[in-house]
Amino acid sequence: MSNGVNGHHNSSEGELFLSEAFKVILEEAVHKATDVKEKVCEWKDPEELRVLMDLELGDHGESHQQLLQRVRDIARYSVKTNHPRFFNQLFAGVDYHSLTGRFLTEALNTSQYTYEVAPVFVLMEDVVLRKLRSLVGWSEGDGIFCPGGSVSNMYAMNVARYWAFPQVKTQGLWTVPRLAVFTSQEVKLKKCFCIFGRMIPEDLEAKIVHAKSQGAVPFFVNATAGTTVQGAFDPLDRIADISERNGIWMANSCTWNPHKMLMAGLQCSVFLMRDTTNLLMHCHCANATYLFQQDKFYDMSLDTGDKSIQCGRKVDCLKLWLMWKAIGAQGLANRVDIAFASTRYFVEELKKREGFQVVSEPQFVNVCFWFIPPSLRGKENSPDYQEKLAKVAPVIKERMVKKGSMMVGYQPLDGRVNFFRMVILSPQLNHSDLDFFLDEVERLGNDL
Amino acid sequence: MSNGVNGHHNSSEGELFLSEAFKVILEEAVHKATDVKEKVCEWKDPEELRVLMDLELGDHGESHQQLLQRVRDIARYSVKTNHPRFFNQLFAGVDYHSLTGRFLTEALNTSQYTYEVAPVFVLMEDVVLRKLRSLVGWSEGDGIFCPGGSVSNMYAMNVARYWAFPQVKTQGLWTVPRLAVFTSQEVKLKKCFCIFGRMIPEDLEAKIVHAKSQGAVPFFVNATAGTTVQGAFDPLDRIADISERNGIWMANSCTWNPHKMLMAGLQCSVFLMRDTTNLLMHCHCANATYLFQQDKFYDMSLDTGDKSIQCGRKVDCLKLWLMWKAIGAQGLANRVDIAFASTRYFVEELKKREGFQVVSEPQFVNVCFWFIPPSLRGKENSPDYQEKLAKVAPVIKERMVKKGSMMVGYQPLDGRVNFFRMVILSPQLNHSDLDFFLDEVERLGNDL
Repeated sequence: MSNGVNGHHNSSEGELFLSEAFKVILEEAVHKATDVKEKVCEWKDPEELRVLMDLELGDHGESHQQLLQRVRDIARYSVKTNHPRFFNQLFAGVDYHSLTGRFLTEALNTSQYTYEVAPVFVLMEDVVLRKLRSLVGWSEGDGIFCPGGSVSNMYAMNVARYWAFPQVKTQGLWTVPRLAVFTSQEVKLKKCFCIFGRMIPEDLEAKIVHAKSQGAVPFFVNATAGTTVQGAFDPLDRIADISERNGIWMANSCTWNPHKMLMAGLQCSVFLMRDTTNLLMHCHCANATYLFQQDKFYDMSLDTGDKSIQCGRKVDCLKLWLMWKAIGAQGLANRVDIAFASTRYFVEELKKREGFQVVSEPQFVNVCFWFIPPSLRGKENSPDYQEKLAKVAPVIKERMVKKGSMMVGYQPLDGRVNFFRMVILSPQLNHSDLDFFLDEVERLGNDL
Repeated sequence: MSNGVNGHHNSSEGELFLSEAFKVILEEAVHKATDVKEKVCEWKDPEELRVLMDLELGDHGESHQQLLQRVRDIARYSVKTNHPRFFNQLFAGVDYHSLTGRFLTEALNTSQYTYEVAPVFVLMEDVVLRKLRSLVGWSEGDGIFCPGGSVSNMYAMNVARYWAFPQVKTQGLWTVPRLAVFTSQEVKLKKCFCIFGRMIPEDLEAKIVHAKSQGAVPFFVNATAGTTVQGAFDPLDRIADISERNGIWMANSCTWNPHKMLMAGLQCSVFLMRDTTNLLMHCHCANATYLFQQDKFYDMSLDTGDKSIQCGRKVDCLKLWLMWKAIGAQGLANRVDIAFASTRYFVEELKKREGFQVVSEPQFVNVCFWFIPPSLRGKENSPDYQEKLAKVAPVIKERMVKKGSMMVGYQPLDGRVNFFRMVILSPQLNHSDLDFFLDEVERLGNDL
């Protein structure tokens, strides 16, 4: 039963492997991954990649060198989301301090249940949540780190339902009336409706009246500050007024994903509340006796894990905390300013060029635009114009991915055919990266 | 807008910091954290720790050296879950290959939506899920990695409800009858009931009949293989028969947490299904047009992210995959065998000692026992015996934590007063660690 036999390596071998693998990771997944001279992705068809990667899991282990090669291969064939020319999602770039926090999180392998097992992280989560609440404008409140924004939104709906109908927890859903939820049209909240019910968008106050007349109880309104595609902002104040007037949960909580614009790295999402009555704990506590003993020798209000719908919960606060300590609130604010300045530059340059047309004026760092290839210019009134335009973005996307030069998303929306969504987040971008982007779209699309 | 100004560091400074921090992490959070000569935890009262850690977040950044010191301090005051004398939870020990996979995951910062952005991990997740399903005994099926076991269980209940009442997704909860869920008594499923309804344990078939007579529709039975406290196994076959006879979801899916006994590290939980009709996708898809375009140039069935209730989803398969490649299925099986052998050794040694009494015969690697201090021995019939015994474990726990010698959990359960739950998972344990544990309980409790 000693180490080194029985199919597992001993600790000095393990540490050696970890050190060598770290060098590979730093070189392949950080250094080269952020180098504009390298590809954003090395495209392979699924069938080809399956063979290259030899993914199947067998009975026997592999050698140190084989495993290091696997680390290299995984980095090689993965998309470099850290790359200055990755614009495909609402996250981009790399923060080295956050990444350090993430490595430390993994090495410590802490589950954030109690002060007993997570002393530093219980206190740290509290500090970070308080800081984020203060930026939202709330001097008091509650909150929790969640595994992603959809889960944070689910918390909001669940806590709102419990707030309106606390019997849901002890007596079950059947004791609750038919409920209605309202949200703006272009939202990421749809995942929640898989669990909670149906989405009824548009025309809020009239819809609330209508829902009530149908026997439903409106209990939740979602408003979005920065929609996924267009980066649009709902009129938060007006919606808050309507919600308050109708006794509906809206400005009571806020979901914020520092893994996006703040570059904290996946996953880093917080659910923030104004509540000071311990609603979050009341809503979710299961009082597991093996974790939340009531005869401990310290202040048991620090055992915050029971606020979560999870049992084991990964530490997600450290990466944000360490990044904040490294650059301060001013450094974070500068990043946002830089992103806005880059966006303004990009939009100006785009408008100077023939064939680029914005879908709407950007409110945020999302720039939605069509590239109209030479063959379609001036033919806006042709009957097949929209149909042909719809096919442009997918072809340019395929070409850029196969070339590996950059990545940007496209989609149709609200009757508008496929357009690109450029998202400018990373402070590591400079003007030449943005010029390259526009040049590259032209290079890839001018023959279409 | 160049690097190096505006509150962020440039990439060569960033890489330097990362390299130096890695050395600190390796030394403090891995090397020393696994050394039996070091403490499992360095206990500080919350007030003292708040001051020591200087957690508050300010406007300005700190120096390289200050930040490295913070990495050191976080490791110092955190509990060493990797330590051979950490028995406090259902995870323990460290696997160096898994940890490498976790570092690589963090460096690549991939969100597991689509083949386009996560080519390697889409294929890898599929391979790992298939392998795990085959070990459950299913040659076909579906599944997904989830952020923890509670979320996996939530998937099970949500998919089961959708399977029974697909209109829940499009028409809302109010169109579904009153539902009933069944589970064994000692379960971790309680978190789900915060979202889904009420728990009705015991006496399954009679309860199903009773629920039906009350107008409820039973749709879900949960059975547990290895309960949290006692490591007990429900009679799976019998429960499956009853469930099948009543058309209730039970052996249709399985939640498995490789972050526990397999040492993959938090978070690594899978939800596995037998279903071959794409139920998981139908239940959860939101068809976000910005991710799941239908005019892509590759097989879009590989865009598996829409099976998730999350939008952004962390890659959780790589750590398990790399560990598996490193030691093979045989290495993993050996670990389980070693854990069982260690458990047997521990129970034998425990029974040889005066004052140790098992709560029940272990079925698994959990050993629940009371330590009866000399002052209580032979006094089982005293009226205050239980009351006094209940106070023993908390005192011993407080002493061990303040000393930092080891960590083990305790709890009351089903009318039995506080007992210790020893969990023997890590293959890095040897007999002397287990002897030390028993000696230490005696040392800490003999005066009580």
